[in-house]
Order: sequence, then C-alpha cells, then structure tokens
Amino acid sequence: MLNWPEAAGPIGYIHSPFDELFGIPRQSGLAAAAQGYLEPIAPWDDPAAWQGIEAFSHLWLIWQFHAKAPMQAGKSKQVRPPRLGGNQRVGVFASRAPIRPNPIGLSLVRLEGVQYHQTGGAKRVKLKLSGLDLRDGTPVLDVKPYIPYADCPADSEAGWAAQPPERMPVVFAAALEQHPALDEAFKALIVQTLSLNPTPAYHQDTERRYGVCLQGWDVQFYCRADCIEVTGLVQP
Amino acid sequence: MLNWPEAAGPIGYIHSPFDELFGIPRQSGLAAAAQGYLEPIAPWDDPAAWQGIEAFSHLWLIWQFHAKAPMQAGKSKQVRPPRLGGNQRVGVFASRAPIRPNPIGLSLVRLEGVQYHQTGGAKRVKLKLSGLDLRDGTPVLDVKPYIPYADCPADSEAGWAAQPPERMPVVFAAALEQHPALDEAFKALIVQTLSLNPTPAYHQDTERRYGVCLQGWDVQFYCRADCIEVTGLVQP
Repeated sequence: MLNWPEAAGPIGYIHSPFDELFGIPRQSGLAAAAQGYLEPIAPWDDPAAWQGIEAFSHLWLIWQFHAKAPMQAGKSKQVRPPRLGGNQRVGVFASRAPIRPNPIGLSLVRLEGVQYHQTGGAKRVKLKLSGLDLRDGTPVLDVKPYIPYADCPADSEAGWAAQPPERMPVVFAAALEQHPALDEAFKALIVQTLSLNPTPAYHQDTERRYGVCLQGWDVQFYCRADCIEVTGLVQP
Repeated sequence: MLNWPEAAGPIGYIHSPFDELFGIPRQSGLAAAAQGYLEPIAPWDDPAAWQGIEAFSHLWLIWQFHAKAPMQAGKSKQVRPPRLGGNQRVGVFASRAPIRPNPIGLSLVRLEGVQYHQTGGAKRVKLKLSGLDLRDGTPVLDVKPYIPYADCPADSEAGWAAQPPERMPVVFAAALEQHPALDEAFKALIVQTLSLNPTPAYHQDTERRYGVCLQGWDVQFYCRADCIEVTGLVQP
C-alpha cells in the first residue's frame, strides 16, 4: 500500500476522446490524432507552475490507472502482451500492461500548445496534447519534460517491441460517406485508432461487429481478413 | 495525499554507489559507470515477474524521492534548474527537479544483466543496472521496458535541455596515483560523475574543497577554473 501524506495527489485530469478502455492505442504516440487536454487542478493550474514548458515538444505524463483494479500482490506476476498474440506469457515488468503491482502509467505525449483562461479573476493554464493513450478522466500525478539526450539512447534494443505494431487498412462503408460528424479530424482519429486492430488476436471472427467509443460516438466496425471496415456511427 | 490501498508499495530497492544526494548526475545515463542493482522484494523477486526482460536493453524506473520532503501544495511552484545557472526560475513541471508535488522520479537505465540466486530454496532475481542517477536505498515503484518506437520521437525539441550538459576535464592529484581503491571502474565513476560539475553554478570559489560520497568513499575535489581536481579519497 502506498500512503504518502506528503504527496499532493492528482495534479490534474486528462480530457481525451477515449471514453472506454477498449480501443485505446497500446502505447502513446501511435495515434497523433488522439488529441485532448491536461487540465491541472488548483493550485497547479497557476501558469507559474508551467513557465518554460513551451520549450519542450514532448512531455512525460505519470498517471494513475483508475479504471481497473491493479494486480494484487501474490497474484499472477505475468501478463500476455497483445503483441505476442495474446497467448505467450511474460513477466509483468517485461511489459507495460495496465495490470501491475502499482497502478502507475507512463505516457509520452506531444505538447500542442499552452492555453490560458480566466477563472475567478486569475489566469489559469490548460495544456493541449496529442498522441494520447489515456482514457478520459485519467488522474495525472506528475508531468516531466522530455529530454532527448537522456531519454533516447542510441543503442537500445527491445526484442519483440523494437518495431511499431503493424497497421491494418481502415475503410469506411459507403453509407458513412456523408455522415455529418465524420470530419477530417474524427476520420483521422478513427483510422489511426482502428488500424492498430484493437480486437483480441485470438478472435478470428470476421462477421462479429465490434464497437469502440470515440469522442462520445459508438464507432461500429468489423475486423475483415484484410482490413478494418467501419460500418456505423451511433450515439450511445 | 496519495492513498492507494490497492497498491503494492515499493517492489524493490536500489543499490547504487551514490550514498548522498550531492554529486548524483542530474539525469540518468550520464554516467555509464554508475552501476548497481535493483533488488526486488518478495513476491516481486520471483523470476516469473521478470520473464522476457532480457529482450530489452533499457528500463524505465519509476521511483520514490525518499530523501527529501516534496514540495508542499500551495508552496512555490517554481524551481531553478542548474542548467540555467541556478538563478532563472521555471515552472516545476518544466523541470525534472526533485522538489515536486508528488515524490515520483523517472529514470532510464541500462539493463546489464539478470542475476539469479537461491533464497529459502527458491530461485530469486536481481537486476544489474548502469547509468544510475539514484541514491542508494531508493524505493522503486514500477519497472517498465523501454520501447524505442514509442519513447524516442524523431521530431522532439527541448529548448535549453536539448543537448547533454558540458563536461569539465577531471584530473587526479599525483598523490592519488597509487591509491589502492582507485581501480579503473572507480576512476571511471569519479570522472563521469565529477565531469558534470556538481558544484552550484553560483559558487566561483576555486579554493573551496568539496566532497562527494561515492562507493562509501569521501572523494575530495576542487573546482578549478578549467578542470575538476581530485585531491583525496577518505573513508568517512
């Protein structure tokens, strides 16, 4: 158990297009169209706390897995990464799976800009971010700037995770072509999210309809043999 | 305040050559000679929890600042990074300074190898690491593998922190040449640590003797105008 009386608790919360866990990219940066905000809470919404942040293009977010119970100590110490087909087990520390001893997540996101607004006569700050892999409402514990010389070793190796995941083509059913909600930004978010194929690797059912909740829409799709086909946009 | 009854608490502790805060490199990876161990505690010392970790050359450690009281909410939200001369203030989130709202640190270290030993008839695991920037005894909350495609964006910018810090030459006084403790590994640790010049930027006193505690030795040195001169190795 972690009990830090000297800690501040969450310094802010994430607003993201991902309303549920299913479909969220399995690493940050895979879907640049996944934009949203970090909204700090008082007193961390004071621009003074962020002065100089614009010098950095990317930020590390250290955040709290709030939507799943973490692994209990003494329970299974292994996970089955989707990248290995979902059957092969590895140690929990050889993976970034969300079920882990302490509910702490790590994401590298792009800082798109700093926005200021007035609340109660005071100037407050909000950060626009992209490349999110975070569910809407995620509590953020810390933000640290990305420092290329320290964070990007030239000689790294990562076995089965060295290369980005493969992408599947994403096609939209003809009926969706004129859908009023489907602007370029939303289309990019759907394509970038679904091309990663969030369906379990052990499902081979090309006739099963899946749904992923994006920007408040239930995006319905099929995982065909050679592509992802988006067939519906439904308000849940 | 952070109170996670569902969390495991520290999963292990760091053994490092840095016995005090002064002199610790200000980012991980700057001193490859800074080697040590992560020693997981039960039940996380079970090799099952680490299965597959050898595929990764680098690991993220998420750890707890245990040697300083963190910033209190409502207190100063700014810090003065040494890289900016120690006088210019930036927001706490635009820096990785240790005084921050939540006492959580982030370090990228190289995995030198996995070691196994027997305890009570069971096989247990210990990780040899290098590039440490952690004080001896630091509690570790989580370990996540370094994933190059997600953690190393091609187009990053980092203003005043884009380039590694400058290094000063390190020379050893003639009296130290035959010192029995000064083998190649210890010499490399001293050179890599002191070349980063841990003395405060606002000190310009070339005649002041400093001491840094490394591997249980008090390493005495002067910060001359053009070099760091190591003059003594004393058992404290």
